[in-house]
Amino acid sequence: MTVNIVGSGKVARHLLRAFSGKVETAIVNPHSFEGLVVHADVTLICVSDNAIREVGSRLPSSAGIIAHTSGSIPLDALAGHDRYGVFYPLQTFSENSDPDYSIIPFFIEGSEEEVEKRLATLASLISKNVMSADSDKRKSLHLASVFACNFANHLWALADSILKKNGMDFNVLRPLLEETLLKTKTISPHDAQTGPAVRNDTEVIGKHLAMLENEPGVREIYRILTDSIRYANNRANDTTES
Amino acid sequence: MTVNIVGSGKVARHLLRAFSGKVETAIVNPHSFEGLVVHADVTLICVSDNAIREVGSRLPSSAGIIAHTSGSIPLDALAGHDRYGVFYPLQTFSENSDPDYSIIPFFIEGSEEEVEKRLATLASLISKNVMSADSDKRKSLHLASVFACNFANHLWALADSILKKNGMDFNVLRPLLEETLLKTKTISPHDAQTGPAVRNDTEVIGKHLAMLENEPGVREIYRILTDSIRYANNRANDTTES
Repeated sequence: MTVNIVGSGKVARHLLRAFSGKVETAIVNPHSFEGLVVHADVTLICVSDNAIREVGSRLPSSAGIIAHTSGSIPLDALAGHDRYGVFYPLQTFSENSDPDYSIIPFFIEGSEEEVEKRLATLASLISKNVMSADSDKRKSLHLASVFACNFANHLWALADSILKKNGMDFNVLRPLLEETLLKTKTISPHDAQTGPAVRNDTEVIGKHLAMLENEPGVREIYRILTDSIRYANNRANDTTES
Repeated sequence: MTVNIVGSGKVARHLLRAFSGKVETAIVNPHSFEGLVVHADVTLICVSDNAIREVGSRLPSSAGIIAHTSGSIPLDALAGHDRYGVFYPLQTFSENSDPDYSIIPFFIEGSEEEVEKRLATLASLISKNVMSADSDKRKSLHLASVFACNFANHLWALADSILKKNGMDFNVLRPLLEETLLKTKTISPHDAQTGPAVRNDTEVIGKHLAMLENEPGVREIYRILTDSIRYANNRANDTTES
């Protein structure tokens, strides 16, 4: 099997490494297409979301199945080709990270069944966690990951800044954070919820809001997330009682 | 060394286990004080925040250093005693969890230096991570942990519900979540921020807001956290340029 990897970013480099020794790979310049293996089996477009359509439209259909690797771009962005698909690894790739590729979920979509099967076979060379997902499902997945990862990370940044102001380091929170995440393996995050909001501890909540008096933006985040936890909890109680 | 553990909840049970084989412990009923060893070295109050003052006021000062184990109650809640303090493990304790006690940060405060030293010595029998923190510092710590853990967990619950509605499971996010947390070991959460907000990808942000049209509460959380990420990022850029 021969796979073109179009792009020079982090996704391209990580896929190249993940495929190493498993398939023939060619790194392809997304501008000049230098390096492109014509009559490859699969050509993976690993460029930024807003360049996928343009790069896709310039690729020859002879380059095999043309697939992009994005969570938020629909399948039909590549609809000009004969056989096209999506090959989406749900992971954040950094310069120096060395993730265990075998556990990364890959979400696959194909313009036809045979295409989907080929892409799934390719993904299963890397990962034990390969699933089909149409464009709507992938959109939800992407939205969920924004909440779970991007937004959670921002809360960590806010916590980090509260700690720094008081001469402490984010690392003091790490054991608590790891345990909080571990807990969601055995019970759902909803059932694992702890803290003043779910206990409806108005005294502590009032003290926290007062501590944030000079930071209206952060105070608003505290208020709205506290309300949302209370709301989710009441709704669950209502359901139980009815 | 003899330690009274007053309470029957999760903190009491975990401290009992953590001290096992290291000090003499006695489990004490918080209502009747049945089991109390008079002339113990330390008496740890492991009851809910709103009961600490009341339980503290009924304990005899002869029970050694009287300390509570809460993040949000000030030291002076126990000021009626001769020697008193705070013995605060920054961890969430569940029924069935088996955390590595040796890495749990313990924050210690004492009514006098000798008391603080004794409590720190006691904590260091359990953990390699023992620090002093006055009541203000501990208050900030607690606020930071609400953001980093309680609120992050709620975002996971929201993500879980988005996934469930689309026939997927929270576990698909786990490798991404673990990598996101791992990243903050080498770069600060602020610098590790990824996603549409920090890229200012208005097209994706607009699509996500549209997907949440029927859930105004969740939509508002999306909007306010996106704004906060943009704000934090702009502020950082401003600082770099000025």
